[in-house]
Amino acid sequence: MSNFGFGGLRVVNPYSVAFREARSAVGAAELLARAEEYSDLAEAIADCNLVVGTTALQHREIQHPLYGLKEGAEVIRKEVANTGHVALVFGSEKRGLSNSDLSHCHWLAHIPTCEQHSSMNLGQAVAVCLYELVRDTGTEVPLEPHVAASCDLERMGGLWFEALQASGYVKRGAESANQEKIRRLIRRLAPQADDAEVLLGMLRKILWKLRQGR
Amino acid sequence: MSNFGFGGLRVVNPYSVAFREARSAVGAAELLARAEEYSDLAEAIADCNLVVGTTALQHREIQHPLYGLKEGAEVIRKEVANTGHVALVFGSEKRGLSNSDLSHCHWLAHIPTCEQHSSMNLGQAVAVCLYELVRDTGTEVPLEPHVAASCDLERMGGLWFEALQASGYVKRGAESANQEKIRRLIRRLAPQADDAEVLLGMLRKILWKLRQGR
Repeated sequence: MSNFGFGGLRVVNPYSVAFREARSAVGAAELLARAEEYSDLAEAIADCNLVVGTTALQHREIQHPLYGLKEGAEVIRKEVANTGHVALVFGSEKRGLSNSDLSHCHWLAHIPTCEQHSSMNLGQAVAVCLYELVRDTGTEVPLEPHVAASCDLERMGGLWFEALQASGYVKRGAESANQEKIRRLIRRLAPQADDAEVLLGMLRKILWKLRQGR
Repeated sequence: MSNFGFGGLRVVNPYSVAFREARSAVGAAELLARAEEYSDLAEAIADCNLVVGTTALQHREIQHPLYGLKEGAEVIRKEVANTGHVALVFGSEKRGLSNSDLSHCHWLAHIPTCEQHSSMNLGQAVAVCLYELVRDTGTEVPLEPHVAASCDLERMGGLWFEALQASGYVKRGAESANQEKIRRLIRRLAPQADDAEVLLGMLRKILWKLRQGR
């Protein structure tokens, strides 16, 4: 990260012994010392306008729009130039991102690799992604309207889910599957900030009505 | 390497315990099992037509042509398309490539990084370089004549050095500095295979004459 000029490391639920040791190690990068720790992904990305998951495409049915790294990096640079906050989310070395993690993402990026060896070492995958992001610095990017921050999308998803649940749509036992489905749906919609406000107001109203009827 | 489809790993003078363990580890990549071991760099790159060193540009006066990775990768792809053998040489994690190592290189490539943090983790540097090499596959590249293989350049450098030494040009104590200077010079010249043959013949003749005069 520091090689390519990225400063904002957020760590979700790290193995605390290793993390504490890494932070306090002699010569540890300032970046690591300033890393923020979160207990869940939703909290870590709350202020982000674009959340991009990374995947090796293994053992997983992809339910998200998928970009190659090169194309994905262009979209990310546009959002950054537009002063949006972008999160690039990496999973653990062993298992990658869970379906629940992925449901927080607007879309997924993947590094084009050999089919036989698609799963990358975590540090190497991060290095390659960040290299691609700064590879063509100075590229002109047009301004586009802001998409809503993740905390707004999350609020919207929560209300939406409650509304569906209150409506009897959500079968017992299928709660978390539905929550993830809604998250993905909202990220695909990628509402602008203003629109998100309007949608939130609508959902609040619907939910209020649904609950009144009980 | 296997993520990006590169198969030919050559290891120069590795720390043998670690290397043996890595090769025999369960699940070790086929690539590692097939890695070739050499006792010096000259031997490892003997059949290569283009030898590219990598550097973080630290603590070192650069005496080679230097390319950014993006531009360097284009040159490398051209040579590969031309069925030339190309070696991309990485130094040890701690010290990088020595001046002696660098003297075997035609030119150097460097990954554009922050000035404050220019030195990269070895595995990450390799991943970024190989990613760049395959990033735009399918790019059309024009054919160019073959440059001579490293073993021919090395033979030429050896004769050249002997000729200089025999001539009294080389001061006592400055032998290895001169050898490296010659290596760099020859790599900058980058003679075509046919020309190298001619040059070798010339040098042999000169050396024979110089020695006759003793």
